[in-house]
Amino acid sequence: MDPDAKERLAVVLIESRNPLNIGAAARAMSNFGFFDLRLVRPYEVAFQEAVSAVGASEILKNARVFDDLAGAVADCSLVVGATGLGHRVFEHPLHRLERAGRLLRGHLRSARAAILFGSEKFGLSNTDISRCHWLLHIPTRAEHDSMNLGQAVAVTLYELHRSPAAARRLPGAASLATEAEIERLAGLAEQVLSLCGYSDFEREKSARNKTLRLLHRLRLNSRDAAILSGMLRQILWKLSRPDNG
Amino acid sequence: MDPDAKERLAVVLIESRNPLNIGAAARAMSNFGFFDLRLVRPYEVAFQEAVSAVGASEILKNARVFDDLAGAVADCSLVVGATGLGHRVFEHPLHRLERAGRLLRGHLRSARAAILFGSEKFGLSNTDISRCHWLLHIPTRAEHDSMNLGQAVAVTLYELHRSPAAARRLPGAASLATEAEIERLAGLAEQVLSLCGYSDFEREKSARNKTLRLLHRLRLNSRDAAILSGMLRQILWKLSRPDNG
Repeated sequence: MDPDAKERLAVVLIESRNPLNIGAAARAMSNFGFFDLRLVRPYEVAFQEAVSAVGASEILKNARVFDDLAGAVADCSLVVGATGLGHRVFEHPLHRLERAGRLLRGHLRSARAAILFGSEKFGLSNTDISRCHWLLHIPTRAEHDSMNLGQAVAVTLYELHRSPAAARRLPGAASLATEAEIERLAGLAEQVLSLCGYSDFEREKSARNKTLRLLHRLRLNSRDAAILSGMLRQILWKLSRPDNG
Repeated sequence: MDPDAKERLAVVLIESRNPLNIGAAARAMSNFGFFDLRLVRPYEVAFQEAVSAVGASEILKNARVFDDLAGAVADCSLVVGATGLGHRVFEHPLHRLERAGRLLRGHLRSARAAILFGSEKFGLSNTDISRCHWLLHIPTRAEHDSMNLGQAVAVTLYELHRSPAAARRLPGAASLATEAEIERLAGLAEQVLSLCGYSDFEREKSARNKTLRLLHRLRLNSRDAAILSGMLRQILWKLSRPDNG
């Protein structure tokens, strides 16, 4: 997600009462690159405590405080409420976070959006929800649906930030040993194993193939191939000393 | 991810010092359906405080404590360390969480795995890392790489738990208004607008199309279509009263 799109997202905490949670929400925002924090009627003591905490982020210091939700989301063309499933049946469309993330990313490409998080104790009120275009829920276990506020913010922003392509990529492929390196290693292994009477590699082609297949299965990186080669060379040196044995 | 596979994952906290973090890790595990919590050399006071906290989960009460990491992961055939990128260059393969999640899910289908989380202050030690098959990192901003422990556990378990298919699904499609409902609504709208002199729907086919297109763009659900129909009928009743105007 590009930084411009991230700037279009406001994280709105409504009536948060715990300074640790406010701080944790700000920290998760900083971790994932979102900077626009807005608080609606925070418990004043909690907010001051959070802002003055050691290591309080710039995000917290720049957070804006609003008397009502309407003011907090006035510049947003999409308002999404984060909610547990609880026992309420909502009239609003309700999307699982995976889907919600996709919808939000699409909107943020060109326009502002807000995600609302309710108070630790009561979540979002019906009045808050009536300001939402739709709701998102984090797919928790039905038996334990209630998430910690700071963790809910972290998980939601991670979903926006995550890259589906990163799951498909095979990282580290660049550092895998080359065929030439594997070949050299196989040659050394052959010499060692021949000297030890493991196989007659000159005559048995299958023994050679077996070694090569094994080395390929190991998916060695170049560094490890070099370490193994060094070990084999040392063994070879020892095996070939006239006083060996 | 099926429950059997989830049972094969151990979450291992090494030298955690903050009871709130231990509690938060256990809570995230419960939210996402993982139950095997193991602690290596936890700060004793913190652990006791976490276990005796109001609402401490069964997970916390059943958590096992180990003197060393070797004992904690003895039954696991894959050990993964969660780490920030920091300034260290690791010799170990390092996977972004998206990819790590895929690899872990694959392993957990048939065998046990552990994810290690280091202490709040120091993360995983080099000795801890030497026990790992590979490392995972949560893709945070380079400028703020250090995550809160409870949030890191929540985000990691969410990645394991999340369903890629859920992002593609269009939930709520079942409750969308049918064409018949849209048609009835359009008919009512025509009557109202005709009575008000907005358009001559009998003669102007384009006016009718315009109304229908608008109603389709709204993507109404059945319930909202019914509410709108009720409103239009009420307006019609008022417009058609002999003493109207």
